[in-house]
Amino acid sequence: MERHHFEGDLQALRNQLLTMGGLVEDRVRRAVDALVHRREEDARRIIATDKDINDLQIDIDNRCLKLLATQNPLAVDLRLITSAMKINADLERIGDQAVNIAENALVLIPQPPLKPLIDIPRMAQVAEKMIRDALDAFVKRDAALARDVLRLDDEVDELKDQVFRELLTYMMADPGTIQRALSLILISRNLERIADHATNIAEDVIFIAEAKDVRHHAESGGQKP
Amino acid sequence: MERHHFEGDLQALRNQLLTMGGLVEDRVRRAVDALVHRREEDARRIIATDKDINDLQIDIDNRCLKLLATQNPLAVDLRLITSAMKINADLERIGDQAVNIAENALVLIPQPPLKPLIDIPRMAQVAEKMIRDALDAFVKRDAALARDVLRLDDEVDELKDQVFRELLTYMMADPGTIQRALSLILISRNLERIADHATNIAEDVIFIAEAKDVRHHAESGGQKP
Repeated sequence: MERHHFEGDLQALRNQLLTMGGLVEDRVRRAVDALVHRREEDARRIIATDKDINDLQIDIDNRCLKLLATQNPLAVDLRLITSAMKINADLERIGDQAVNIAENALVLIPQPPLKPLIDIPRMAQVAEKMIRDALDAFVKRDAALARDVLRLDDEVDELKDQVFRELLTYMMADPGTIQRALSLILISRNLERIADHATNIAEDVIFIAEAKDVRHHAESGGQKP
Repeated sequence: MERHHFEGDLQALRNQLLTMGGLVEDRVRRAVDALVHRREEDARRIIATDKDINDLQIDIDNRCLKLLATQNPLAVDLRLITSAMKINADLERIGDQAVNIAENALVLIPQPPLKPLIDIPRMAQVAEKMIRDALDAFVKRDAALARDVLRLDDEVDELKDQVFRELLTYMMADPGTIQRALSLILISRNLERIADHATNIAEDVIFIAEAKDVRHHAESGGQKP
């Protein structure tokens, strides 16, 4: 087995996941920007180009399957590749949530603004940072950074509750705001789900970094260093 | 490589996934029953026992990693095991959604009922069937059954929209209903997510059944029949 070549393959896999992560993070930002700046065309573009993300997911999946089939990786490498497949799925679903945000934005954009948006862009910023840091933690095998991501998830949950409470008071005071308020609540839930996916990625990183038991199993098989 | 023994391992893996599927399906049903029959204790029990599901997920994951490490599976077997890891993650997240439903139920149970619940239990029934059929399709490698699951997802989406529209009219007519209506809308979104996870599983099944390309790659490597 050509270890050197295999290392190159793993590096290419990491890079492709980083590319995918950058793309979906960008799509989340653009979806929320389209809402904030009321740009219908931008929202439509996000919906129309979701297929690019799905294609990239299939590419990455196939790369992982090929590595598993041809390299018989063990221990840390095996965990890295199977985690890459899970992370890949989480990133694709973050892309789906960007589409959902864009769809909810299209409902809101033609209507008069309900209120200046503060907490939702803030939630988006934190969620984007979570995606970035979780992937960074994956590439560097940095469990401490992954734990920071879990802490950011609490921040997103608090913002989500704050958004909910504030919009509830709007709805109570004026039923004419209910539909718009509901769309904003749904967007805050989309962002919560994005943060949940980033959290899943961070948990995978911690799992890889700290799962001595399975590593031990594989090494005791004695098939490979 | 002991093929006979390996087949037994794969069968054990399938069975363990079926067990996990049965458990989470049961938890979804109990969570919705707790809401419908206003049983606070039942809702609390679902929240308290989520750890069992998480433990089972880790068990199944470790079983998959061990099979990958020790059997160097190729082609269909490789896809089966990596898909099992993804399906396992989806099932665990269905368990999380049952917890969310139970939490939302705990908000509603102490308050007077807003309306008789018809569509939400119906959504739950369809979502439960989707979990069951998706796993059934996985075990039998039945792409046609998996496609039926995708069709049921459309039914869940329609019910979700119906729930939303109906509760919107309640909220508009009487702001005193807003909080309860929102909790019911969130429960319908929890059920939608459960249906989405079942859809993911069904898509994996179709992917396994129809992905000739990767199978070809692995077989041309000539390492194993």
